[in-house]
Order: sequence, then C-alpha cells, then structure tokens
Amino acid sequence: MGAIHEFSMQLKVLKFQWTGESVRFNCWFCPRPPLVLKRRKYMSSQSLNPRTGQAFGPEFADTSAAETQAILAQAKIGFDAWSEATITERAETLNAIADALDLNSDALVEIADLETGLGVPRLTGEVGRTSFQIREFAKAIMTGRFVTPEVDAAVDAAVPVGHPELIRAFSPIGIVVVFGANNFPFAFSVLGGDSASALAAGCAVIAKAHPSHPQTSKRVFDIAAKVFADQGFPSGVFSLIYGVEAGVVALKSELVSAGAFTGSRSGGRALFDIAQSRENPIPFYGELGSVNPVVALASGLTDPKTFASAYLDSLLLGNGQFCTNPSILFVPKDSPVISEIEYQIAERSPSPFLSPSTKSAHDANRTKLSNLLASRPMAGKSSDGDGIYSAPAVIETTVEQVAASVEALATECFGPTGLVITYSSLPELLSVIDLLEGALAGAVFASADDADAVSVCRAISKKVGRLAWNSWPTGVAVSVGQQHGGPYPASTSSIHTSVGLHAITRFLRPVAYQNLPKEIAAQLF
Amino acid sequence: MGAIHEFSMQLKVLKFQWTGESVRFNCWFCPRPPLVLKRRKYMSSQSLNPRTGQAFGPEFADTSAAETQAILAQAKIGFDAWSEATITERAETLNAIADALDLNSDALVEIADLETGLGVPRLTGEVGRTSFQIREFAKAIMTGRFVTPEVDAAVDAAVPVGHPELIRAFSPIGIVVVFGANNFPFAFSVLGGDSASALAAGCAVIAKAHPSHPQTSKRVFDIAAKVFADQGFPSGVFSLIYGVEAGVVALKSELVSAGAFTGSRSGGRALFDIAQSRENPIPFYGELGSVNPVVALASGLTDPKTFASAYLDSLLLGNGQFCTNPSILFVPKDSPVISEIEYQIAERSPSPFLSPSTKSAHDANRTKLSNLLASRPMAGKSSDGDGIYSAPAVIETTVEQVAASVEALATECFGPTGLVITYSSLPELLSVIDLLEGALAGAVFASADDADAVSVCRAISKKVGRLAWNSWPTGVAVSVGQQHGGPYPASTSSIHTSVGLHAITRFLRPVAYQNLPKEIAAQLF
Repeated sequence: MGAIHEFSMQLKVLKFQWTGESVRFNCWFCPRPPLVLKRRKYMSSQSLNPRTGQAFGPEFADTSAAETQAILAQAKIGFDAWSEATITERAETLNAIADALDLNSDALVEIADLETGLGVPRLTGEVGRTSFQIREFAKAIMTGRFVTPEVDAAVDAAVPVGHPELIRAFSPIGIVVVFGANNFPFAFSVLGGDSASALAAGCAVIAKAHPSHPQTSKRVFDIAAKVFADQGFPSGVFSLIYGVEAGVVALKSELVSAGAFTGSRSGGRALFDIAQSRENPIPFYGELGSVNPVVALASGLTDPKTFASAYLDSLLLGNGQFCTNPSILFVPKDSPVISEIEYQIAERSPSPFLSPSTKSAHDANRTKLSNLLASRPMAGKSSDGDGIYSAPAVIETTVEQVAASVEALATECFGPTGLVITYSSLPELLSVIDLLEGALAGAVFASADDADAVSVCRAISKKVGRLAWNSWPTGVAVSVGQQHGGPYPASTSSIHTSVGLHAITRFLRPVAYQNLPKEIAAQLF
Repeated sequence: MGAIHEFSMQLKVLKFQWTGESVRFNCWFCPRPPLVLKRRKYMSSQSLNPRTGQAFGPEFADTSAAETQAILAQAKIGFDAWSEATITERAETLNAIADALDLNSDALVEIADLETGLGVPRLTGEVGRTSFQIREFAKAIMTGRFVTPEVDAAVDAAVPVGHPELIRAFSPIGIVVVFGANNFPFAFSVLGGDSASALAAGCAVIAKAHPSHPQTSKRVFDIAAKVFADQGFPSGVFSLIYGVEAGVVALKSELVSAGAFTGSRSGGRALFDIAQSRENPIPFYGELGSVNPVVALASGLTDPKTFASAYLDSLLLGNGQFCTNPSILFVPKDSPVISEIEYQIAERSPSPFLSPSTKSAHDANRTKLSNLLASRPMAGKSSDGDGIYSAPAVIETTVEQVAASVEALATECFGPTGLVITYSSLPELLSVIDLLEGALAGAVFASADDADAVSVCRAISKKVGRLAWNSWPTGVAVSVGQQHGGPYPASTSSIHTSVGLHAITRFLRPVAYQNLPKEIAAQLF
C-alpha cells in the first residue's frame, strides 16, 4: 500500500474508505450494512508467547482455497460414513478421543500455556473439561437422549383428531464448520463443545484453527484424527483448516450445512452474514460478545470487602478474557463497596493478553469507555515485563451518565476492565437494565427476602441466557440444565445453547416418517 | 411511470433495471444478491371471487407506517401482560378463542369460500383444524409440556463433574410478526399454527393479513380480539396489520423478536433477508416453496389405475395449491401408470386459483417447465367460465432430461401441474434424487420387502422433513410427531417445524437460573 494509510472517496453512489486495516464500501442505495474487507491478518500463523511478546515454533500456512475444496470433498465422504455409523460406534470413538486427550494432557497444556499464557492450572482444568464434555455427549447419545426416534402412534378417528403413525427421528444436519475461540484453546476450540456436539449428532466437522494457538490446534487435531483412523473412519469425518479465507470458502460451500463460532462480535457477525446471504442459507450458531450485567442490591452487599474481592476475582479471571466476564456491575450509590474495589484493585497484578490484537482492542475500548463517561479508571498494577500486558482497571460511573451515553453499555472491554454503575433507586436501576443489550449471563446479589429482588431478576432475565443468584457469571457448568446463549449480540440464536447437552440439538434435524413399516424402520434407524 | 415499461442502465458500479414490476439495483462491489424493490401491489386490499373474477366487499387500506408503530407500542404492553399471565390464564383464553371460532364457523366459511374458492367442505374442515390446533397448544402448556422449568440438581464434586443447581426455564421470545398464507385462510393465516404456537408460548402476535382474503382475516381477528378483551388483556396481545409495507416496518422494529411466514420462496426470502440483516438479527421461520418428490418403485405400482387416480387426487387437491403437493413423481420407465395418468387426467376438471397472481405465476412456471424439458403437457379439462382457472396438467420427462436441465427440478408449479420423471435403474434414480433441493415432504411407494426401498428412503430422507410411506404427502397431521419444515428452500430453519406441537419451541427461549432460592423461584415461575 506504499505510503497511503487512509483515504476516502465518493464515486457516484459508492463510497470507499481505506483505513489501513480495512476497505469499507458503502453503497448509497443498499439498505444493508457496508461491506468491510479487512486486510488479511494472517497468510500464515506462528505462535507468539504473550509473556515475552516473542514468536516461536513453526509457521502454519493458511489453507488455500483449492486445499479447502479438497477437504470439503473428503468431508462429504466422511459425513456419509459417520452419519451412518451406529450410535455405539460414534460414542466409542468419542470416548477414545476423550481418553487420548487426557493421556496427552501434560504435553497439550505445555504448548497451550506457551501460546496463550493462561497458566498450567487453568489449562489442565480446561483439558479435563474438554474430555469430560466429549464423554457427556457420548453418554447422552448412548442412553438415547436427543437421538432416539419418538413414536407418535396412529389415532383412528376423523381428522383433525385422527392421524397416521409418525416416527419423529433425528438426522445429523450435515457438515459443520467450527470456528474456534482464542480464549479457550481446548474447550471452545478445535475439539471443543461445538465440535463435540456436532460429532455426537453424527455430523462431519471442519475445524478452523484460531491463529493465536496454531500448535495446540494441530496437536489436538492430530490426536482426534488418529483415533478416527484407528476406528476405520475416513479422514473427512474431522478436518482442520487454517486462515480466514479457508473458513469463508468452507462456510460458503454447498456441501456445508451449518456453522458454529465463538469469538468477537465483529468477526461473528461477518461470518453470520455470509451464512445467511448464501443462495441456500444455513444456521450459524455464533456466540459473540457479552457484557454480563451483575446487579448488587443493598441486601446483597452486607460484606463489602469480601464482595469486592470476589468481584475482582471474577472480573480478572484469565485476564478478563472470558465471555461471561462481569463487565458491568450495578451497585447502590454511596455503597462502601466502591472504595473497597478501589483499594483492592491497586494490589492486583496484570496477566498477559492472548494476543497483541486482543490487547489493542481492549485498550481502545477502555479509552473509549473512559472518554464516553468522562471517568478516569481506578487502576491496578502495571507490568514492567516485555509481554502483552495492561493494568487491571475499573471505571466508575452513574446511571445518569450511561443513560446519556448508551453506547457505553454496549462497549465490551474484552480484558481486565470493569464498569461499575451506581444507582439511587429501583426504578432508575430497572430503567437502565432495560437499555442493556442481550448478554450470555447476568447475576443478582440480594437476600432472598428482599422485596426488590424479584423485579430485578425478571428484568435481568429478559436480557440474558443465564441468571446466577449470589454467584458470579464466570464458570459455565457443562450440564443438562445449562444455557449458554442469550439475545443478540450475546449469540446469533438465543433459543440455542453452545454449552451443555442441549447444544447437540443445534445439529439434529427432525424427520417425520409416516406409516413406515417395521421392516424398513429396523434398517433405517 | 408513463410509457416506460422497461429499462436498464449502468452508472459506474451500480446497475439499475426496471422491469415494469420491480426495480433491481445490482451493485458491482456487493457480494450479496441484488436489491429488488417491487412495485407496491396493494395500497389497499379488496376481496376477489376466484370463480367469477369479480371484486366485492369493502376495501381494506394498508396499515400506514405510523399506525404500525402505534401497534408495535401497544404490542409491547400486550407482551408484558400476556407473558406474565399464568399458564392457566393463557390456556383458558386460547380455548375460548377456539370455541368462538367453532361457534362462528359457518359465517367464516361462507366469506372464506367467496374469497378463496376453496369450497365449503374443505374450509369447514380447515376451521375445525384451526380450533383443534389452538386447543392442542393450550393442552400442551396446561400439562406442562415445553414450558415447565427443568431442574438440574446441584452436584457436589470437583469441576467439571460438580456444578451448582441450574433451573432451565423457558421465556417467550417476545413479539412475533406472523405473515399469513394465501392457501390456508384459517390454518396458516391470522390465527393459524404460527400465531397459536407463539401465543401459547406467551408471545404477543402481530398478524399480517394476506391480501387474497382480507375479510376472512378481519373476521377471524375480531373473534380473537374480543376474547382477549373479555379476558381483560390489553389489545396489544394480538394485532392485525394490512399491506407489505406494514409487515416490513414491523419486521424491522427493535420491539419485534421473531418472524414467521408461510408462502412463496421469493416473498419468504425477501423477508428472511430483512430479518437477518437487522442490526440485531432475529429468527425468521419461513416455510417457502417445495416440490415434494414422490418415488414409486415397481413393487409399489401393482395397481396402476388406482395409483394414477390417487396421484391425481393428491396433485389436484385444492387446485394443487398445497405446500405438500406432489410436484415431482418418479416412476419406472415404461410403467403402465403413465398412460393411466394420461387417460385419467383428461377427465379432470379445473378448480379456481386463489388469485390472479397465483394463476399467472403458475402458468408461467408450467410454460417454463414445458420449454425446459421440451415436453408437451398431458392436459385435463379447461374451464369455460369467467373465473381464474387453468386446466390440470402433467408433464412427462426422463431422468436424462432433468439431469441436463436441473432447473426443472427446482421449478415449483404452485397449482394443478405435476412433473412425472421416468427412470430406468436404481443408480439413475438415486443420482437424480441427489440433485433435488430441500422439500417439506416426500413419499416412497414400494412393498416393504423390496430390497431397493431402504436406499430410496435414505436418499429421500436427506431432502425432506417428512417421508410418507405408501401414502401421499398432502395431509399434514397436527400432532406431536409432525415435522413440517425441511432443508432450504422448503423452510428457512430445517431443525424446526411449523405444524405440530414442537412448533412452540421456535418461540421459547431457555433461561438457566443458577442457585436460585426457592422463595424467588416461586415468584418467577
């Protein structure tokens, strides 16, 4: 691009803007959002140690369009084999993959820690969570949950009461492209919950590696690929691709039937738009950004010191790089918890960011929030190392200020920054909750006999997929009752979850069989 | 527009085309489909008798944008009241609406018959089906199905096995806009399955009347509105709007959380695109066109005369204006059933079309099919009346011909036209099934011990939401095992159904409550 870093021009109805990072085409006649073509960030991926800022290890070339097409053709063969395998074969293969992950846990954690800086204890736990959720899906299908055809017996009467026998069976939706997240290199990545639930449903999976952990992605993939091969399945059951372009080629392919994604709002929305504007649109299950509002009523703040400490623990967990991070906390005006937070954050040390771009996006959003609200952050310790760090921070503001600057409520600082909003009355609190966007989770801290608690719970429940009572939103159990998905922008499909057993329903397509003879049913199901 | 009927010009990157019916803007830089602005078809709606071609009755003005905004504001109030009503209150109200429909059945059928020409027996049955399905949804929620919170008890162990209590409850998704169909003035219209399932879920509904039956729409709406008022609910629980513009305004509104539609592929896709390109996309459950492939193996054709008669009955039911119409029939080459069809269709009389535009679209598609396949239709009787009629017809072709002209397989003639495709071997049959688009339903006629039947069922099942065995696809039971929705273009969400009890799940958003005290739960649920 030479010396041109930014320019903008208008050609009749089309406006071009080049910002150095992206070209924006804004068509005067199109009612749709502008087309933004981002500068290719990765022609290849190389690991970067967040603690030192140094690159290391091999370069992983982006998968070319031709290679991706070949992988898609293999995936079609893989899907035919995997979807026609018995439930037992599928479950045994998934269990063998879980075993192989556990067996290789130490080596996986070592490389993932170098690539993400998330630390050995957290990553060891994450491998355990990943193998656990694979086994949970295997167990679910083995016990027939979600996949057993439901027989709706014939009723011999006049219509509309009478009807023929209908067997409601469940077919895997097809080939699924899974876009891994940067903040969970195991549990929401190559072999994370999206892949595990799609595979359990009988789908073939094409996993797109996140460029911030290319080596971890490859090792996890190799472990699974070996198990599939050992069990005699074609390689196309499970594939790995690298690079944004390859992901787009796959998502646009006629051979692909669904997409799943965990990551940023902008990235997820761009992929959602691609999936929906296909000639034949396909479901795209995106889990995007979320501010996860937490409301503390006075009755829930009896111990400000402990509360402040637990708040900072949740806010700064994994350097705040959690999709369920409590980005917004509402507390009563003049509560002593604010000075407690200010006092305690000063002693908090920074942790490394996952990547330079994560840090730069976070820092820009923190500055934006601070400017929008004209509020200087209460800050923690800075780092004196060479790695990718920012000091933890909390920005204090009031309900009046955010009501005058609603954009602040929609600004997620993905990283170690929290927004504390003070309110002076219940109506004021409820009115600002009404202004919030959708979120994955929220929380209410109160005593159970607080007369205001129910209306606050009701207000928060309209905005979230999960409401935690007197507990923090971070920590998402892999369980049958889980709901990890809320109104947009938290997710692109609020009636589905990406965590917990119900995640499998995203990839199962019901097919009703009418009057099917037993001989045929026995061979089909 | 004066004398200009068509023109096309290119302004740098933007191409305009005016075809007399629509303006098409094609932006050279946009990867998305072109923007097509159709000429407004209705500034007001007036009933038209299809048997005579004569307009009659009052004119219904399109709802203006300002009126629609006022209706949306009322719907917000209506949603708050209806969503917080008890299950019993909702079920009782729905049952009272069903009773009122039945009580007014004769008057409703009389006006609907004048507007649609579908005949008194069929329409009387349809009112019964409509009140039945409203009662079925009421019964489902009263027995707790779909709506009872599921308790996932706490497990006291280390993570990932251990977890807090999670109560998975179900919130109504919000205000739903329902676009009624032209071919079912009751069961898929103002108070059809989409409205009934959304209301049962606790959603407020804004129904957009179909312009081909404005009077029926108004009478059905008035019946329901009176019941809501009698039960003390605000008017915004259930609203009626007229006109394309009003539907678009509602679908774009921030206050609306979902859309549901039954109708044409082009109309449904345009609305789907609007819903998905919103700043916050919302689910849009569209049931669009479908060719519904039926395969007859030789073992299923032991009585060609009876088979041909049943085929024509299904094909010509309601003048072929059924979304489950068997548009494509595969039969073995040289089967005597073909001459039987030719012989019998000559005796079949035409029925009226729902509207002039339905007839013109059908006739154009029939001509297109006939030209694509270079095959002259076998035709039935013509009408000598003044109404909106076309003679029934069947176009015969071969697998070789359609494989060379795949577009024919995707051309739905919504009306009294069938395509009969002859095949000479199982592999040839399977290869052409693989070329089919998604469909709502399909059927296989064979004997249960036919060795080819399983592979044909498997092939058809990949393309459809329902597979009927030795029975025709028309006739969609309202039952718990039903699946009325298949891969695109049959529907925009193949994992959901628009008929049967599971239709309610489209409008229920799971919310997980973590560690909720019993006192609070008792007040929330």
